[in-house]
Amino acid sequence: MKEILRLGHRIERDKRITSHVALTARAFGISHLYYSGQKDSHFETSLKKVSEEFGGSFKIEHINKPLEIVKKKKKEGVCIVHLTMYGIPFEEKLRELEKEEKILFVVGGEKVEGVYYQMSDMNVSVSHQPISEVSALGILLYSLYGFASFKDGKREVLPSENGKKIVKKK
Amino acid sequence: MKEILRLGHRIERDKRITSHVALTARAFGISHLYYSGQKDSHFETSLKKVSEEFGGSFKIEHINKPLEIVKKKKKEGVCIVHLTMYGIPFEEKLRELEKEEKILFVVGGEKVEGVYYQMSDMNVSVSHQPISEVSALGILLYSLYGFASFKDGKREVLPSENGKKIVKKK
Repeated sequence: MKEILRLGHRIERDKRITSHVALTARAFGISHLYYSGQKDSHFETSLKKVSEEFGGSFKIEHINKPLEIVKKKKKEGVCIVHLTMYGIPFEEKLRELEKEEKILFVVGGEKVEGVYYQMSDMNVSVSHQPISEVSALGILLYSLYGFASFKDGKREVLPSENGKKIVKKK
Repeated sequence: MKEILRLGHRIERDKRITSHVALTARAFGISHLYYSGQKDSHFETSLKKVSEEFGGSFKIEHINKPLEIVKKKKKEGVCIVHLTMYGIPFEEKLRELEKEEKILFVVGGEKVEGVYYQMSDMNVSVSHQPISEVSALGILLYSLYGFASFKDGKREVLPSENGKKIVKKK
């Protein structure tokens, strides 16, 4: 059970960033993405279509009280991992994280309240530079899990030297 | 000399995605980002501010004829590496890429013309899933180079267990 909480989605400003966070999460086999801020049906539909085409059972859920989710998960023994440029280098935490069966990765929005730093079991940083939360999440999940494979998609991409090869499976 | 060419920037749709591509590129010591599509002064200014604050000499340049840049670089012996979900798994090309001193990484926009697949020395894929180009670029650059360090910034972030530590240097 590896899940993501994306904080403070704003449709106008973040429409594609939150989509890219979700696409990245899905590619590494994350099962569920919660997001707070504005509910965005267009975002939800577009990710659902990706799973229908390419497989997997990635779920997206809009929530109004993100801190409640963190508290609830914490009570259930889930390890809360907050990504922030101010945290501990993630490489130092990889071994510890690899042992955790249940993780909620918290990915910030514009400004993250201090309480998330306090509530998290770990605040980890992917470089201490103002890097994108999309690439930060990708690098962390790649280092932990590698790519997921999906058997139940309608289409599958085959590696190609200089073109596009797609197999239709259904 | 490691550079990036970002194709087909559209201010309205891509404003933050292209910024995230650039932030990711900078964090790994990429020296120069060319971008085609719409010129976006706001994007250029915001990245310039990041380098002023956190260091480095990352350059951004808007260009009108991206294919000309690819042709020019190719003539100069630069290795052209196109990121695409249809390419060869990047892990298979890492050793080869590590030896290249001059690389132009081509990062697509909405739809990439076939000529870029043909002109590139390598078409590499980061998962064969519809992952974000931001995380794809981050994972590739992390695997090749690791994070850059910047000595000349006004501010530096220090690792922290559960807060924010920033040192002002100038």
